[in-house]
Amino acid sequence: MDSYAIGIDLGGTKIAGALVARDGTIAFKESLPTLAHEPVASVLDRILVCVERLRSRTSTSIIGIGIGTPAMTDSRQGIVIHASNLKWTNVRLRDLMAEQMGAEWKERICLDKDTNAAALGEMLYGAGRNARHLLYVTIGTGVGGGMVLDGRLYHGASEGASDIGHMVLEPLGVVCGCGKRGCLETLASGPAIARQAQAALRRGEASGLSALNVESITAQDVVEAAKRGDILARGIMLAAGECLGIALAYYVDINNPELILIGGGVCAAGDLLLGPIREAIRQRALPANARAAKVVLAGLGQDSGVIGAAALVWHHFAPKT
Amino acid sequence: MDSYAIGIDLGGTKIAGALVARDGTIAFKESLPTLAHEPVASVLDRILVCVERLRSRTSTSIIGIGIGTPAMTDSRQGIVIHASNLKWTNVRLRDLMAEQMGAEWKERICLDKDTNAAALGEMLYGAGRNARHLLYVTIGTGVGGGMVLDGRLYHGASEGASDIGHMVLEPLGVVCGCGKRGCLETLASGPAIARQAQAALRRGEASGLSALNVESITAQDVVEAAKRGDILARGIMLAAGECLGIALAYYVDINNPELILIGGGVCAAGDLLLGPIREAIRQRALPANARAAKVVLAGLGQDSGVIGAAALVWHHFAPKT
Repeated sequence: MDSYAIGIDLGGTKIAGALVARDGTIAFKESLPTLAHEPVASVLDRILVCVERLRSRTSTSIIGIGIGTPAMTDSRQGIVIHASNLKWTNVRLRDLMAEQMGAEWKERICLDKDTNAAALGEMLYGAGRNARHLLYVTIGTGVGGGMVLDGRLYHGASEGASDIGHMVLEPLGVVCGCGKRGCLETLASGPAIARQAQAALRRGEASGLSALNVESITAQDVVEAAKRGDILARGIMLAAGECLGIALAYYVDINNPELILIGGGVCAAGDLLLGPIREAIRQRALPANARAAKVVLAGLGQDSGVIGAAALVWHHFAPKT
Repeated sequence: MDSYAIGIDLGGTKIAGALVARDGTIAFKESLPTLAHEPVASVLDRILVCVERLRSRTSTSIIGIGIGTPAMTDSRQGIVIHASNLKWTNVRLRDLMAEQMGAEWKERICLDKDTNAAALGEMLYGAGRNARHLLYVTIGTGVGGGMVLDGRLYHGASEGASDIGHMVLEPLGVVCGCGKRGCLETLASGPAIARQAQAALRRGEASGLSALNVESITAQDVVEAAKRGDILARGIMLAAGECLGIALAYYVDINNPELILIGGGVCAAGDLLLGPIREAIRQRALPANARAAKVVLAGLGQDSGVIGAAALVWHHFAPKT
């Protein structure tokens, strides 16, 4: 009667997996490391070990396996197109898994980029329940997005939709990993926040952060200092929130969402980040569109990856109507 | 066997109507004026006259009536929410028409904003045939958009999607009709192009346009001068194209379209406008997304309004599979 989906969150440093029930609750979790420069076959083995361990924890059926990838992914073909942190290009992960697990699994493995999985997870089990038009934004090492339009994940013409982290806000700004300058990611990601704090301290600006080793200051340090009322840290979070809000105001006038969910490590800043995001949207988007778009924290927190990956399975094989 | 849809393009200065076959060909056209400050009942009468004239031209059945409105429209309820040029607010146009025409018509009348109708018309009958992910952009009195995602018109959470004309590109720029500053519409619409030419001539810049009465210079004059090689006019078209391209680059990274169709009066500039749009997208959007997005002229020209309105009917009542 009961069955589970397996959700796998394939990251640059670990493989997290979970048995997830239809209502989004986690029955068991597993975690295995991924190593730098590891060959594909070795990561594949690790994924299969993770799957086997999870399967061994239950006697009920597994409806399918969902995998969230840190990468551009061909969700229809089950191919990881390009994952820079894994150094993967065009890895036919679904086929490779089915070769090992048996052909009957091929149709039961769903792949998508992790932010798409998280967007779906939030809609089914998180802060987006009952929403049909939502954007999930993660602010961490990078800035990424996943979007649900009319109740369905939207991938775009070539699986490139919701790539909000590379919207160019400052064409003469800092060079981004993508090669362009002034992408949102260079202004509001965790590393960008840390870099701005380090630069300000090197300029001699006053801040409680100066008690720390400048080189090792992280976005988390900045968020904590901002929460304690540190003026410099608050200013940096305000600027990051404004940049996010400017980009999201464009999103709001283009896609008219009812909900924008902010997740990822930096969202620990809470209203210090959400306040300026909301204000920038209010100032920049059309009033009716701005009013329609609630900006709140994502709901699934640390488990967003595995629950989102399992959501791919539930949504695909057993959609609610 | 044969049947027609009636397409009505409800504009600020006229009501255009046509009998449109399933393949998008026009059998007959009608046109009636709308007057400034005309009461709703009077415009409604004119629409009904237009419909009756068209019905009288054929003995075959009318599958439905599609209406493109110059306005924010509740496409599900058939309500014109706000049309500033008609001074309409919350006009239940579908109900009003069905009261006059008979209740059996109520389910056969489709309303949508004109740019959405045009986007659908382009997908079914114009430059977007076979595309499933396209944005239609009209550049005329204003700058507007309509979008097709996964083969379906997308309206957003509150019918506010694809409002690209009010994306703020210059927050300290010229005040827009919407109350904000520096919206795309203040930089690249027909009136914006005319205003820039007038200002340059008043500053004494050299141009063949100085032979004209400065006050009466239109965007069409600027487009024609640019085509003749006038340096000032070319510079103005280049700047307008760049602004459009910057906004469309955001669109490209958000929605990853395969096709962007440029329509409206200003598109007569052709490659003088499309060139800078393409270049700005190439510079600003992610390479894979930029490559996926072809930018071309819309295909339906002057008849875009009535064919698009009829497309609402064909798409709704007799979708191709």
